[in-house]
Amino acid sequence: MSDYTKILLEESEMPTRWYNVVPDLPTPPPPQLHPGTLQPATAEDFEAMFPKALIAQEMSQERYIDIPEEVLDVYRLWRPSPLFRARRLERLLGTPAKIFYKYEGVSPAGSHKPNTAVPQVWYNAQEGIKKLTTETGAGQWGSSLAFACAQFGLECEVWQVAASYRAKPHRRTMMEIWGGKVHPSPSDLTEFGRSLLAKDPDHPGSLGIAISEAVSEALEDKDTRYALGSVLNHVLLHQTIIGEEALLQLAKVGETPDLLVGCTGGGSNFGGLAFPFLREKLAGKINPVIRCVEPTACPTLTKGQYRYDFGDTAGLTPLMKMHTLGHSFIPEPIHAGGLRYHGMAPLVSHIYDLGLVEAIAIPQTECFAAALQFARSEGIVPAPEPTHALAATIREALACKESGEEKVILTALCGHGHLDLASYDKYMSGEMEDLDLSDEVIAAAMASVPNLA
Amino acid sequence: MSDYTKILLEESEMPTRWYNVVPDLPTPPPPQLHPGTLQPATAEDFEAMFPKALIAQEMSQERYIDIPEEVLDVYRLWRPSPLFRARRLERLLGTPAKIFYKYEGVSPAGSHKPNTAVPQVWYNAQEGIKKLTTETGAGQWGSSLAFACAQFGLECEVWQVAASYRAKPHRRTMMEIWGGKVHPSPSDLTEFGRSLLAKDPDHPGSLGIAISEAVSEALEDKDTRYALGSVLNHVLLHQTIIGEEALLQLAKVGETPDLLVGCTGGGSNFGGLAFPFLREKLAGKINPVIRCVEPTACPTLTKGQYRYDFGDTAGLTPLMKMHTLGHSFIPEPIHAGGLRYHGMAPLVSHIYDLGLVEAIAIPQTECFAAALQFARSEGIVPAPEPTHALAATIREALACKESGEEKVILTALCGHGHLDLASYDKYMSGEMEDLDLSDEVIAAAMASVPNLA
Repeated sequence: MSDYTKILLEESEMPTRWYNVVPDLPTPPPPQLHPGTLQPATAEDFEAMFPKALIAQEMSQERYIDIPEEVLDVYRLWRPSPLFRARRLERLLGTPAKIFYKYEGVSPAGSHKPNTAVPQVWYNAQEGIKKLTTETGAGQWGSSLAFACAQFGLECEVWQVAASYRAKPHRRTMMEIWGGKVHPSPSDLTEFGRSLLAKDPDHPGSLGIAISEAVSEALEDKDTRYALGSVLNHVLLHQTIIGEEALLQLAKVGETPDLLVGCTGGGSNFGGLAFPFLREKLAGKINPVIRCVEPTACPTLTKGQYRYDFGDTAGLTPLMKMHTLGHSFIPEPIHAGGLRYHGMAPLVSHIYDLGLVEAIAIPQTECFAAALQFARSEGIVPAPEPTHALAATIREALACKESGEEKVILTALCGHGHLDLASYDKYMSGEMEDLDLSDEVIAAAMASVPNLA
Repeated sequence: MSDYTKILLEESEMPTRWYNVVPDLPTPPPPQLHPGTLQPATAEDFEAMFPKALIAQEMSQERYIDIPEEVLDVYRLWRPSPLFRARRLERLLGTPAKIFYKYEGVSPAGSHKPNTAVPQVWYNAQEGIKKLTTETGAGQWGSSLAFACAQFGLECEVWQVAASYRAKPHRRTMMEIWGGKVHPSPSDLTEFGRSLLAKDPDHPGSLGIAISEAVSEALEDKDTRYALGSVLNHVLLHQTIIGEEALLQLAKVGETPDLLVGCTGGGSNFGGLAFPFLREKLAGKINPVIRCVEPTACPTLTKGQYRYDFGDTAGLTPLMKMHTLGHSFIPEPIHAGGLRYHGMAPLVSHIYDLGLVEAIAIPQTECFAAALQFARSEGIVPAPEPTHALAATIREALACKESGEEKVILTALCGHGHLDLASYDKYMSGEMEDLDLSDEVIAAAMASVPNLA
């Protein structure tokens, strides 16, 4: 293997278990709380929202969970995904660093999201559920769930943030191709939606609002459940197939990473890549720096607080201890729609609080500049979200050029940008601005966080 | 290999030679003619347009041509491409047929076009050329050439059919991401363009017109050459890596095709898949039926005539003997932009004339219906062009269901439809119509074909 660009795995080499990081952590993550009693939430508290099997995964203490054969069978449509050595980017930068990227854009929906959409739909189908509801911003998650529902014959109803619904009709079309039904959010289909439209008929919506609508719709029908595309433990669990594959692929070429870099929105792409490597690190086998990268316009880890907060705007979800900017926070319309969420996965928040990973925030114009360097050397046009990871990777590679270090950098290219070209157009025409949040805006949003001791 | 979805090749298994079908044909294809003298064109006749190495390939009688190492190195960004067994589509149709599809949407530009864009740019770079001009319709070819030019540091200037330039701004953005410069065609940059705009300032353009503009621009500068994305022998030559890989992949699972199906626009995707299998057929090793599929709105093979005609509207190219609807033909705006060309590759026309392959035409609504069945089972959203091949594949698979035959069908899914979702939206909303050409329209267009004995 002296000369290679892609490192592939055979289908027979695909991992058959997901990895649960919880039992390996030095201290357990804080429990989710029932919003009424403020006591630790029980499995029953979740049953109107999720199927029992996923609730069990959400609370599991098992280190490994077998992937069902029917799920593996759908994964095979695009998995194992390739690991690339970015030789052409290295050459462009003139860096001695070795850059590897795990590419999830090969999935039908074009991102890592189907890794969890497929098992979520399958477990729901096993329990006789007929319909799933969900929210989506830019549309990556909604289209992934629609694809997965088509695989197992479930109905799929999606509340898409109204601003995106209007600005990005093509993602809606993609959801409809796979049989999904799409509503702009806020909608007149839910009480919460109607209350918002009464105040502002042109309400742009937010992820938190769309979650509230999708959840409330699921709560009303016994054959309907809700599905979330990030944040929760079971979602991050399903994404660990990314990191497990990457471990096998790096081993094939005899490399161990000095640095892991992932973008963080809700945290599922980052957790999926990082947790299997964190396991090896906690076991003393490797010692990479693990770095989260978030947008300066939504700096959950670097400027939020580690507090109990709601996952949605209306306050329907259990309280989760997480890094949050406040559930009333409505991020500015930066282009990385998948990174515009007020909170961070409780598991990612916990390991950040433990000092096991670090975090930085990068402004979007630096991210798009990195994306052009990447596209012109490696060919792939990245989604706006992973351009944050690419920008951080390039920063590190240029530091290696200064220092002469031959660091091995591993990053996750979690999706392609084929449906985000309007953002590139805005950047290239000089119309994109960087948005920094003032401390006042953050303080105002933080006021919505419940005051729990 | 009793259970698999994808059949992959290692990078080390990637073919290192292109296959030239010409020396294996029972009769040689008719020569191209100089438009002035009507004598067979010489290498010199092409030198203002193409680099010497590509002209040599255009006229080559060698059976195999080595792929340069630098080209292989770029191919490795996405090649070898996967061959899929469409098990989920088979199950949906309830067919005993085995359906295989070779997927070229994994390339950076999302189609098979980079297979020839990369070597075309490399050979030009070797001869010191600084800039390439080209035409593009929907934008697949223009973006592929822009990507390839970025790899080797050449400038890229693209004339995009004005109707597509206006309706599909995202493909333009993609070309610009890779550093390409894009003009709507007709443009005020060429004499021919200005003459058309004088008559109609809102002229929608056509591929033939855009070719005329790109060629005339190349002829004016000694450091600029022109690049064509289909039709010519050397383009089909470069695409044979598709079929060579597919042969290796089918051999891995012990299958031989009973039927090959490919969509035909200019003919390069079809030729790329079919020629290596045709070689095996002519050698008596296998005996598949080989079928071209074209749109009823541009039925070059099934309703055109096998005549000498120009490749462009202004008549700047050599005369090629090909199935043509007449170089003045402007196809209706069906959604498969890549299949809207008045002519057919001379090599495909010749083997069709020899009876080595057959052809059918399919209306577009049947194609989009097939695309939805495919997307909902196999996951991938196909480009409008290969939906023609999918529709023909499904016709055959359903015939097998009737007859009980376990035919092995191989088709080429030459690109994804991520930038063609507006067409799907039109289909799903019931606004798409089938367009059949009347004999009168065809007769009128045929009047532009030169009368050569």
